[in-house]
Amino acid sequence: MEEYDLIIVGAGPAGSTAAIYGARYGLKVAFFESVDPVSQLTLTPVIENFPGFEGNGFELVQKIKEQAIRFGAEHKYENVDSIEKRENRFIVRSGENEYSAKAVIIATGGRHKELGIPGEKEFVGRGVSYCATCDGNFFRGKKVVVIGGGNTAATEAIYLKEIGCDVSIVHRRDELRADKAHQNEIFKRGIPVIWNSIPVRIEGKDVVERIILYNKVEDREFAVDVSAVFIAIGINPATQIVANLGVEMDSRGYIIVNKNQETSVQGVFAAGDCCNNPLKQAITAAGDGAVAANSAFEYIRSLK
Amino acid sequence: MEEYDLIIVGAGPAGSTAAIYGARYGLKVAFFESVDPVSQLTLTPVIENFPGFEGNGFELVQKIKEQAIRFGAEHKYENVDSIEKRENRFIVRSGENEYSAKAVIIATGGRHKELGIPGEKEFVGRGVSYCATCDGNFFRGKKVVVIGGGNTAATEAIYLKEIGCDVSIVHRRDELRADKAHQNEIFKRGIPVIWNSIPVRIEGKDVVERIILYNKVEDREFAVDVSAVFIAIGINPATQIVANLGVEMDSRGYIIVNKNQETSVQGVFAAGDCCNNPLKQAITAAGDGAVAANSAFEYIRSLK
Repeated sequence: MEEYDLIIVGAGPAGSTAAIYGARYGLKVAFFESVDPVSQLTLTPVIENFPGFEGNGFELVQKIKEQAIRFGAEHKYENVDSIEKRENRFIVRSGENEYSAKAVIIATGGRHKELGIPGEKEFVGRGVSYCATCDGNFFRGKKVVVIGGGNTAATEAIYLKEIGCDVSIVHRRDELRADKAHQNEIFKRGIPVIWNSIPVRIEGKDVVERIILYNKVEDREFAVDVSAVFIAIGINPATQIVANLGVEMDSRGYIIVNKNQETSVQGVFAAGDCCNNPLKQAITAAGDGAVAANSAFEYIRSLK
Repeated sequence: MEEYDLIIVGAGPAGSTAAIYGARYGLKVAFFESVDPVSQLTLTPVIENFPGFEGNGFELVQKIKEQAIRFGAEHKYENVDSIEKRENRFIVRSGENEYSAKAVIIATGGRHKELGIPGEKEFVGRGVSYCATCDGNFFRGKKVVVIGGGNTAATEAIYLKEIGCDVSIVHRRDELRADKAHQNEIFKRGIPVIWNSIPVRIEGKDVVERIILYNKVEDREFAVDVSAVFIAIGINPATQIVANLGVEMDSRGYIIVNKNQETSVQGVFAAGDCCNNPLKQAITAAGDGAVAANSAFEYIRSLK
């Protein structure tokens, strides 16, 4: 069984930055990239808001990974199946491989829930987005819809309105799930809600031109011309992997971390979108990763 | 008086990233860069550990600043003299200019204390460093000294030892100020301490070659051949500017922030090295900046 000081599960901005820092601290580090479709970030066509970087999401993720590898972190392109604590070590299993580590950093991110309708996948990055903060800027002054009825959808819609988009919300029920404060802000700003409507498909030539909706009450399909569809029906943090370790999570499944990115289990740290952090951005994930590596380094040192 | 939504004091990685995010949130933002010598980062000759970036410190700071300006944040090259809360607004004074803002982000950083000896300024970036995490990597296998006797000096020395430097500590007294745990680690690792010794000057041709020390007890000068001098005699966070606002600070003068980068005063946020954050790195400062801008945006929205 190969032994490491630090194993990092995830190779997005959080995991790869943790790998950079871990390797620079002189730790023997492996970081694991899932072979399944990776983070949303790699699909982002233009990244404008990552300080010090210009390019697309794939390039950014690639660049951080390469930096980590250059400093000696071992990159493994394997799905991690399980992590088990055995005395003072963690046993990480991936298929038939077993590794052991003194500390682990969970940087598995989150997956935005998808609608699963025709046109959705095809237009990702060309009008279909799962992140208003990331992509809203491209649609100032244009007509857009936000799909969803919870706090996230409300926040996205308010944000899009504030930056100057002509935004409507599409919701499948006749009232929003979002809390009153959010609802008040929606109505105060005059953001229209298209009630009782379910997305059927997204259409366009090269970019999104319209969305076809189905009104459940009136039993009819209708089209709405839009330049962008922001899908905000929730996120699933990829945190099942640590359930058996007893790591504390909040009610939505996010790993609870303190300012040092420590979880409730000694030797287990977490960083990025899988945590209960206040903002889910590449730059904040990267910052988390550096802090997690620093805390893991201090922890490993304390074992000696 | 010019009115803004958000004024950011500081234009390092924290301040400029906050400006990027603030501007993208559609806020009217100004960010102020001090005309005094700026952050340590601009002096760093090679940055290896900022994810997604290659270049020197000056280039990184410049690039982030330019991104913020491109998104519409106004860059002001002025020293901020005072910030005053007046009802729900903050009055920011700079020389004879007055500005007002609904929220402020303090991103003034910290200044590493300097020895003030000959050779120190001349060799910054060529063997003189104030940050082992930043620069230690360049001196693996080489002889280096850490100047100082507190926890920071101890941490730097342990770190340098761990990554494979031949490190000694230079301290002016006959015992360390660092706490017992740190002292134990120093001695356990066999890191020699040069006691009772005060740095006199740093010498070399193009890069650091030796440091001249003065032994107070024996009243004699002597030379130690080294490739690098890490100066760890403390940091002064630049937080005087918020003292009159009643912003809570810790005993060392760092602004106390929560995970949302909120300070104890409504409408005042802080990010980067001036905060009591667990790690002082460009990438963590940038992450802080994004979170602070997001929190400021939420706060400003709540005022409406």
